[in-house]
Amino acid sequence: AHLPYGTKSAEAITRFTLNNVLFLLKQKVKLIIVACNSASSLALSSILRYFSVPIIGVIEPGVKQAVRITETKCIGIIGTPATIRSGEYEKQIKKIDPSIKVISQACPLFVPLVEAGWINQSETFTIAKKYLDSLLVKNKKTDTLILGCTHYPLLKPVFKKILGEKIRLIDSAEQVVRQVAGVLHDQGLARKSSDRGARCRFYVSDDPDGFAYQARSFLGQRLSKVQRINHV
Amino acid sequence: AHLPYGTKSAEAITRFTLNNVLFLLKQKVKLIIVACNSASSLALSSILRYFSVPIIGVIEPGVKQAVRITETKCIGIIGTPATIRSGEYEKQIKKIDPSIKVISQACPLFVPLVEAGWINQSETFTIAKKYLDSLLVKNKKTDTLILGCTHYPLLKPVFKKILGEKIRLIDSAEQVVRQVAGVLHDQGLARKSSDRGARCRFYVSDDPDGFAYQARSFLGQRLSKVQRINHV
Repeated sequence: AHLPYGTKSAEAITRFTLNNVLFLLKQKVKLIIVACNSASSLALSSILRYFSVPIIGVIEPGVKQAVRITETKCIGIIGTPATIRSGEYEKQIKKIDPSIKVISQACPLFVPLVEAGWINQSETFTIAKKYLDSLLVKNKKTDTLILGCTHYPLLKPVFKKILGEKIRLIDSAEQVVRQVAGVLHDQGLARKSSDRGARCRFYVSDDPDGFAYQARSFLGQRLSKVQRINHV
Repeated sequence: AHLPYGTKSAEAITRFTLNNVLFLLKQKVKLIIVACNSASSLALSSILRYFSVPIIGVIEPGVKQAVRITETKCIGIIGTPATIRSGEYEKQIKKIDPSIKVISQACPLFVPLVEAGWINQSETFTIAKKYLDSLLVKNKKTDTLILGCTHYPLLKPVFKKILGEKIRLIDSAEQVVRQVAGVLHDQGLARKSSDRGARCRFYVSDDPDGFAYQARSFLGQRLSKVQRINHV
């Protein structure tokens, strides 16, 4: 009901995220992933301290991987206006290695293009080219690009066509999964083989059908059941 | 904090609109304009009956003008997914003249393009051409096109370049103003010349600076003061 987050203020994003966390805690979850880069950038640091359940954002895992693989020590970030404005990626990268150069570019049209299903249209290609050109003109030595928004991995084929093989794309999802597995193991929260199998439940704050439709592009499968909830 | 409305469900749009109306009533307004086509399409009929203050939407004034000027009796509508899905334009047109043919096209990318300031870019032109072509292919006799969203009048130069002079564009704003003047006069609510001058106050539910920046494109002037409020 509040999407997109990436064009909202830090205050609004923090309020939405806090309400989402409170809802999930009521469902008795043992760990929470803030699977949104804008929310991770702007809300995570201020809400983390309130809760004892581990809460994992999507910024840190991508940062760690990018710092590990860059050879030129020039990392590019693309994200929503809110994520880029927060400066959170740059801050986290510099904390690990202050000598790394970070360039960034807000790409406000990518989320609407993905949501509208315009992945293969020529306009998406030329819009992406404009954003990426204006990123790379800032530093031609960039060899690593963090896809700093949940929607951008769906545009990977477009980015690869524009950037070729020279620049490596960081999709944080895989790193997030590894970090979650580590935390579950370290804190003794992992499921035992004798436990019953995992189930997925999907809750949304607005139209379940629209969500289920969009989710197919992201997950590559139909969702079994999506429930609408009425929290704000 | 909830924008855009045009991709949300009827329930969410109705809830947001109701809260907005309640806020304005607390400011002791004498008349309310629902200056959003998605909210007018989806929420107006269900909230109108609750209130005694006159509430005016932006659908009816545009409909009346379109019905008046069409010669071919073929009217086109472009709007957000929510507005088009509601079928409200078609319903109101058919109520006045059931013989009129109505064709419509949802254009989910126009609001993001306008918000991103991409008015003069070549991609905006070709995206608009795709939407309008797929509208007009449904009925080539269309001579009147209703711009069914607050953001679309900013794209008028683009639409005119694509459509030429054959198709007349209906921007509802002027008609809304006339209807408001009529209602104020008929109900004895109009300001008397002895009253103090009109003032504008702007309230927003999220970032005031972002709003003030966007508002300049719409109003062609700087806003004096924008206040943030915390209702949901």
